Amino acid sequence: MANITKKVSWSSRADESAAAGESTPLLNGSEQPQHSRQDSLRGRPKEIPHNEKLLSLKYESLDYDNIENQLFLEEERRMSYMGFRCLEISRWVVCGLIGILTGLIACFIDIVVEQLAGIKYQLIKENIEKFTETGGLSISLILWAVLNFTFVMVGAIIVAFFEPIAAGSGIPQIKCYLNGVKIPRVVRLKTLVIKVCGVICSVVGGLAVGKEGPMIHSGAVVAAGVSQGRSTSLKRDFKIFEYFRRDTEKRDFVSAGAAAGVSAAFGAPVGGVLFSLEEGASFWNQMLTWRIFFASMISTFTLNFVLSIYHSHAGDLSNPGLINFGRFEGDSVTYNLYEIPLFIAMGAIGGFLGALFNVLNYWLTIFRIRYVHRPCLQVMEAMLVAAVTATVSFTMIYFSNDCQPLGPESTEEYPLQLFCADGEYNSMATAFFNTPERSVRSLFHNQPGTYNPLTLGLFTLTYFFLACWTYGLAVSAGVFIPSLLIGAAWGRLFGILLASTSSGGAQHSNAIWADPGKYALIGAAAQLGGIVRMTLSLTVIMVEATGNVTYGLPIMLVLMTAKIVGDYFEEGLYDIHIKLQSVPFLHWEAPATSHWLTAREVMSSPVTCLNRIEKVGTIVDILSNTSTNHNGFPVVVQVLESDEPAKLCGLILRSQLIVLLKHKVFVELARSRLTRRKLQLKDFRDAYPRFPPIQSIHVSQDERECMMDLTEFMNPTPYTVPQETSLPRVFKLFRALGLRHLVVADDENRVVGLVTRKDLARYHLGKHGLEELQLAQT
Amino acid sequence: MANITKKVSWSSRADESAAAGESTPLLNGSEQPQHSRQDSLRGRPKEIPHNEKLLSLKYESLDYDNIENQLFLEEERRMSYMGFRCLEISRWVVCGLIGILTGLIACFIDIVVEQLAGIKYQLIKENIEKFTETGGLSISLILWAVLNFTFVMVGAIIVAFFEPIAAGSGIPQIKCYLNGVKIPRVVRLKTLVIKVCGVICSVVGGLAVGKEGPMIHSGAVVAAGVSQGRSTSLKRDFKIFEYFRRDTEKRDFVSAGAAAGVSAAFGAPVGGVLFSLEEGASFWNQMLTWRIFFASMISTFTLNFVLSIYHSHAGDLSNPGLINFGRFEGDSVTYNLYEIPLFIAMGAIGGFLGALFNVLNYWLTIFRIRYVHRPCLQVMEAMLVAAVTATVSFTMIYFSNDCQPLGPESTEEYPLQLFCADGEYNSMATAFFNTPERSVRSLFHNQPGTYNPLTLGLFTLTYFFLACWTYGLAVSAGVFIPSLLIGAAWGRLFGILLASTSSGGAQHSNAIWADPGKYALIGAAAQLGGIVRMTLSLTVIMVEATGNVTYGLPIMLVLMTAKIVGDYFEEGLYDIHIKLQSVPFLHWEAPATSHWLTAREVMSSPVTCLNRIEKVGTIVDILSNTSTNHNGFPVVVQVLESDEPAKLCGLILRSQLIVLLKHKVFVELARSRLTRRKLQLKDFRDAYPRFPPIQSIHVSQDERECMMDLTEFMNPTPYTVPQETSLPRVFKLFRALGLRHLVVADDENRVVGLVTRKDLARYHLGKHGLEELQLAQT
Repeated sequence: MANITKKVSWSSRADESAAAGESTPLLNGSEQPQHSRQDSLRGRPKEIPHNEKLLSLKYESLDYDNIENQLFLEEERRMSYMGFRCLEISRWVVCGLIGILTGLIACFIDIVVEQLAGIKYQLIKENIEKFTETGGLSISLILWAVLNFTFVMVGAIIVAFFEPIAAGSGIPQIKCYLNGVKIPRVVRLKTLVIKVCGVICSVVGGLAVGKEGPMIHSGAVVAAGVSQGRSTSLKRDFKIFEYFRRDTEKRDFVSAGAAAGVSAAFGAPVGGVLFSLEEGASFWNQMLTWRIFFASMISTFTLNFVLSIYHSHAGDLSNPGLINFGRFEGDSVTYNLYEIPLFIAMGAIGGFLGALFNVLNYWLTIFRIRYVHRPCLQVMEAMLVAAVTATVSFTMIYFSNDCQPLGPESTEEYPLQLFCADGEYNSMATAFFNTPERSVRSLFHNQPGTYNPLTLGLFTLTYFFLACWTYGLAVSAGVFIPSLLIGAAWGRLFGILLASTSSGGAQHSNAIWADPGKYALIGAAAQLGGIVRMTLSLTVIMVEATGNVTYGLPIMLVLMTAKIVGDYFEEGLYDIHIKLQSVPFLHWEAPATSHWLTAREVMSSPVTCLNRIEKVGTIVDILSNTSTNHNGFPVVVQVLESDEPAKLCGLILRSQLIVLLKHKVFVELARSRLTRRKLQLKDFRDAYPRFPPIQSIHVSQDERECMMDLTEFMNPTPYTVPQETSLPRVFKLFRALGLRHLVVADDENRVVGLVTRKDLARYHLGKHGLEELQLAQT
Repeated sequence: MANITKKVSWSSRADESAAAGESTPLLNGSEQPQHSRQDSLRGRPKEIPHNEKLLSLKYESLDYDNIENQLFLEEERRMSYMGFRCLEISRWVVCGLIGILTGLIACFIDIVVEQLAGIKYQLIKENIEKFTETGGLSISLILWAVLNFTFVMVGAIIVAFFEPIAAGSGIPQIKCYLNGVKIPRVVRLKTLVIKVCGVICSVVGGLAVGKEGPMIHSGAVVAAGVSQGRSTSLKRDFKIFEYFRRDTEKRDFVSAGAAAGVSAAFGAPVGGVLFSLEEGASFWNQMLTWRIFFASMISTFTLNFVLSIYHSHAGDLSNPGLINFGRFEGDSVTYNLYEIPLFIAMGAIGGFLGALFNVLNYWLTIFRIRYVHRPCLQVMEAMLVAAVTATVSFTMIYFSNDCQPLGPESTEEYPLQLFCADGEYNSMATAFFNTPERSVRSLFHNQPGTYNPLTLGLFTLTYFFLACWTYGLAVSAGVFIPSLLIGAAWGRLFGILLASTSSGGAQHSNAIWADPGKYALIGAAAQLGGIVRMTLSLTVIMVEATGNVTYGLPIMLVLMTAKIVGDYFEEGLYDIHIKLQSVPFLHWEAPATSHWLTAREVMSSPVTCLNRIEKVGTIVDILSNTSTNHNGFPVVVQVLESDEPAKLCGLILRSQLIVLLKHKVFVELARSRLTRRKLQLKDFRDAYPRFPPIQSIHVSQDERECMMDLTEFMNPTPYTVPQETSLPRVFKLFRALGLRHLVVADDENRVVGLVTRKDLARYHLGKHGLEELQLAQT
């Protein structure tokens, strides 16, 4: 089963990633696992009982801490004030580019989806109209199913066979990335291309999905690409932005990209910034926040501008975002104090339904991990879902007899007459026979009485299960819009029922009760909040998408209630998926009851240390040791001619050693060839981020006897903590500074252990108090 | 002059604060100043050349780092999971209470101001109407001036004589507090009372001030009070929330309070959260952010609810906030692409005018620091300003001949007919003869043509200088509303000029150009942004106050332009005032060109260390040494029977030592009296935050010979850095964790120095590269 887990995990091609040297775990310490107390406790079992009780050793950590070695400090000290100004300006330029590109991608997706969906629905509509009279609607059904089938098949094939990481919305992956976990291939150009094509296919294919979630992933990829000034996939290096080729800077830009994605998806620049901060920030920096804000703003602006030209009222910038909730204006906007308890009740319902959704999806995902792990099976499942979705939709429309008059100012895009009288249309079809974005809008804004309660009830029920089944398929798709749609449907139903209950009693309040659109909005917020469990950023996103702050307060209340109720049952959807991947995700704070743990218990030990002047052979052997596969090595110095223990003097990373070995920076060679170019920071930046594996570096037997001087390259001032430091304190230091390795030293400044991400992520609060996750090599 | 600076500084009563033991500086190190290289460099001059080139040693630092000593850890370990849940719940309860109380205070201010201003304007209006016909308007002027005079006098007297820290908006002080600087008396109940009364007096007194800024300060005081569960001023201890009696928790609640204040002032809960984060956060914590959000939400809600009852349409919650920009609806809301450059130009104008405002106010403040430092002089200046304001307003109205017809749907509260024909009113009076909030709203929403350009131009000019003169007076008052008013006036003027220019040319665009209200809004944003230089939070606040996100993008652009242009000339207004107070304020990052500095250069040394078991006499002597007045002492341990140097084993604070001395926790006494109660964390909490000065603790000659064991009370795991650590790295650690003392240790773990706030705040980027501020005992 360990193998199965590997198969369907986000970074599913273990063979490839191993070859690329990307699967090296974070762990340092445990040099001789059999002797270590720690390891016997954490032993890696062959059989994996439950995925979510494990912590994978597969994921590397990002380093948010600058490696301030001599090379770096020399470069910084050489740089003038103007140099820093230029750097700052280029950061703004990069953010601007990120915004523009993200906006353009959003436009592209939107326009292509609109066009293709338009063609599809037109085709089916004509077909249905043709066969409604003559009988033979089964042909229409088949046409519909086949069209969906084809689109989804294409979408699923490219995702399952070419880039499995492009599946889903990408939000859990970006969340992990921003948290500091390196998810292989998540920010590559290829992923972006597959994601964009995949999302177009799945939305046009009529699945219960949205195109908004994937925008966040797309924005992040754009940011990672643009900020590095090169593309490894295209083998182009523009020789610009070289300064930004390190984890610290890249992660900042990826935050901006994610924010730009949210901003483009919902027309919510502030919401985007808050999303990035809520999900990613460890240390809030004002300048960074402003740059993120700038990228978001540009992204919305670009999208808005291009779409305004496309919709041929060029220059009108008042309607940003891929999804637009339409205007809530006039009397329907106000709400009253006695509606607040109702809103809170809706929040509770949303929290409950969201938790139900998450539990069902959790079981489904476990099932998928066990049985649906081959790409061809995944494609078949996606096609099955497509066919079922089409059939269910058709059946629902077919058996619905909710006919509504087609008014002159009706905004229906594809009104289906079907068995309705002339001048009328089938109301169920408005919900099913439409892109989900349009359905949401019509639920928000259609006149009272446009839907009858039965239609809404049936729609909620079917769409709920369809959406739940769809999330986690091997297609690129977001869960935002389906959640909004489910919520809008039951919210509207709630509103209608409320109006019919109260209309018997007090007549005066009729004007307020009578507007079901308001309740649809609140329901949508409740359902979405119940599923994803974001509060602050989601409130702002919803407010920005409605274009009206009046609903700010009820939306906040609803989202908070939904979160509290939902958390009682089950975690948020994204957190479930992160847990199922056994990612060493660091939360905001250490578990509350972990004060009795200290660095001594938490750390990995003994630690593989290097001497400041170390034999090449030793280094190669340590790096080649696949059983440990450490990434960071404390550097120690032995006091000359004394038997005192070695003292910590620095920290060096595997990636740095690899570069040093590649360039053969050996003491002996430096002496013999004085003209040899000194190794520069540029050499490290050129190799970033895909450092070659140690196996690809040839070191001759003679060279093995040479010595390497690490003084210049190591970080001479790594952060250290004493052994007695409590876990919350270690956690705070680690999280606030975004560290990758934290050295534990005794009071003689000797290395006694090393704390890495997985050492901290291991502890979590379960139902029976503090639990310790097992580590696994999956 | 040092004395003068002391007189008018925020904490202006040096005598009192010295007695209360609050003026102890942050500095540790420099035990023998005359021998230290560091100190000869930083020598404290008698004469102070320029205030802003100094860093005051007067301000203490807050400790955002928990003191994890044995007592604390024992308590945490004893606490069950349920205990932590209860704590979490009580945090939410406290935030709810903060929200409710802040909302109620806002209501109180609003209602009292409305009532008093109503009476005042009605009185003057009747008087003017009486004398317009008969001649003798000078009597009206005198009436007006005397009324203003009286109110302002009362406001100035209570501020200048009873609580000088209540002057101004309080935002710079709260900014400092959230940054980690302890400003004496800033969060006391007395300050709140004076602030509330003061702001009512100054707004009713007709000064060019707003009541919004002070709400932020009020919210912060409420938070500090509620979260501690007691009031020292009222001598009441409710014995609740004792866990929260430390800097870490208190600062979190003060963030929530400030956010609740913003939220109540502008009806902007999200803006409030962002304000708190932009100004205060060092480490973004999700749970904390949600609590802050909750407090903001409750505060808006409370205000809204109470005001809806007051305005007798109870239950309508759609109009939150003290200032309400009114609804921007219909055609006037849209804007077009070609307006964007205009908006940016307006942003630039705003930035320039803002910088001008700040420069003028800076000179004025320097003048005030030098010459207007006695309370009675301050009161006289305030009264002078009040009289001048009334006279100027009256003159402007008197000589204005801008008569406008009084339509049936006119919203004027106090239309002044004066010399206008019947059925008309004086347009200049709408701007001057009104509370500033109403004036802003009428500039935003009145029909095109309500103001003629000359009126607006003259109004902008006079109000600009009045507002500039007013800010910094010894009255409680905010600068938000005057800024908005100035901006709205010139923005509207800009719009009118634009309409008249373009109406000659293209007729088709008339509909868009013709709405001056839109330009008034943009102008208001530009001017406010140019003065205070906030971007993200201000954007959200403006958007929430207008109740419409359509203007989000232009407002962002405008604020960003205003900031960039303004920063070119001069800093933001709050930063100027912080600098003039020589507060050791830590910015987000170390200066860019500071990589050549290391901890060795930055730190204070030598450091006064204590032994783990130390003689009481030594401790008392060290604490009593007024020339050094250290606050934190590294604790070292001597290896027994060896001549090795002492090693660092902990850190203890002055406040802890004081409590220990007070309770006579001596080794000898513990042996003799076994039944003696063990010192608990509660004893430290009871003494927080006003620890008695060392002088008030009596230690007999016998007791001086006793020993004190610090093991249990010191923080055994203080953060340390090696001497080679670069300044940016030290800065990052210090800022991200909100430290107060950072020990610099060598590789034998011996203490070589101590880094405190002022050591880091000293370095800043001036016009000639990195500059070092001098330290002064002012």
